[in-house]
Amino acid sequence: MRLRNNPKANEILENHKNIVVINTKGYKGSWKDVFQNNNPIYIEIGMGKGDFIIENAKRYPNINFIGIEKFPSVLVGAIKKMDNESIDLSNLKFMKEDAIFLNDVFEDKEIDRIYLNFSDPWPKKKHAKRRLTSKTFLPIYQKILKDQGELILKTDNRTLFEFSLISFQQFHMDFHDVCLDLHHSEGYEDNIQTEYERKFSPYGPIYRIVTTFKGE
Amino acid sequence: MRLRNNPKANEILENHKNIVVINTKGYKGSWKDVFQNNNPIYIEIGMGKGDFIIENAKRYPNINFIGIEKFPSVLVGAIKKMDNESIDLSNLKFMKEDAIFLNDVFEDKEIDRIYLNFSDPWPKKKHAKRRLTSKTFLPIYQKILKDQGELILKTDNRTLFEFSLISFQQFHMDFHDVCLDLHHSEGYEDNIQTEYERKFSPYGPIYRIVTTFKGE
Repeated sequence: MRLRNNPKANEILENHKNIVVINTKGYKGSWKDVFQNNNPIYIEIGMGKGDFIIENAKRYPNINFIGIEKFPSVLVGAIKKMDNESIDLSNLKFMKEDAIFLNDVFEDKEIDRIYLNFSDPWPKKKHAKRRLTSKTFLPIYQKILKDQGELILKTDNRTLFEFSLISFQQFHMDFHDVCLDLHHSEGYEDNIQTEYERKFSPYGPIYRIVTTFKGE
Repeated sequence: MRLRNNPKANEILENHKNIVVINTKGYKGSWKDVFQNNNPIYIEIGMGKGDFIIENAKRYPNINFIGIEKFPSVLVGAIKKMDNESIDLSNLKFMKEDAIFLNDVFEDKEIDRIYLNFSDPWPKKKHAKRRLTSKTFLPIYQKILKDQGELILKTDNRTLFEFSLISFQQFHMDFHDVCLDLHHSEGYEDNIQTEYERKFSPYGPIYRIVTTFKGE
């Protein structure tokens, strides 16, 4: 998700070092020191304005969450929300980073779960390799995830979901749960919505899959 | 699909030996002799009243089609259609058979393609093994299909499709094409509808997947 460019965005990130990790590549292998505990670490790649990960961090205090966003202007939206609502969560960090560099940010098997929510569908075929579920990114996720650590994709974009099913199958990933209409299915009452999901779910189904990678 | 039971159904089948193969297990390995050519053989398991396979046989005269149906009363519906419309197609046969016995009907690699259209969803979890995409049936299909022969599933039943995606992945099948809304997607203009599909597609999406088995 994009917002209008905010020229002061990077300055705002610098001024919120309590929540924003600036030196993203400085903690590879030692993220438990950042959180000062051994709890599992869940990351969201493309956190947008942060509704999903903030709500997760509130609901699950014994899990550490890291929200990752490529666009500083977007990340500022999440920071403002934290400020405005005086939210202070020791189990939540944000960072501005591109998914392509995550092997420089996290050590092998350092992460317990990855969330991809409403990722950019990059609809043109020539841009397919930029999709966060393409074979460009799957090996990166595979390295940082623990054995049997889940990759959970949620989207309303049919073409992205169709593409992802094939991409995951071709990468020999295991499918644990597939739901083709999340908001009209039983058993998903604990679903935490993103801001985008709340806005657009009346217009079509939300698709979701829970997958794991084969061990190496 | 079920119809009211027709006590004369088996008699009607016997009287249509030009189109109905009665001795289903008598041609294992020699189906090309039945059709008197070497053309590819496509089968539909659960052909219902036959709209799909009859239209296929008309459109593709260089492919042989076999429609398979478990319930004689249903098969009679297809025979009546052939009679009423005076349809005579040398590349089309029907049979009354249960999918579970198909390895007695066809030799290994004798079939080029399998269609499953709007199969019974068997919605109760305890009946999952009866679903035509369960691991009960996949090894049967794998044996009779040629290498790279396609299994194509089409359904409007969301739960059956979700189940099938996981079942196919667990059986290490390859996904070639996935479509989560067949009637509102480009590139499927040659889709041949079943009688059920024409009736129920306004009420929700039609799901479709093209898969192949791994070679043995």
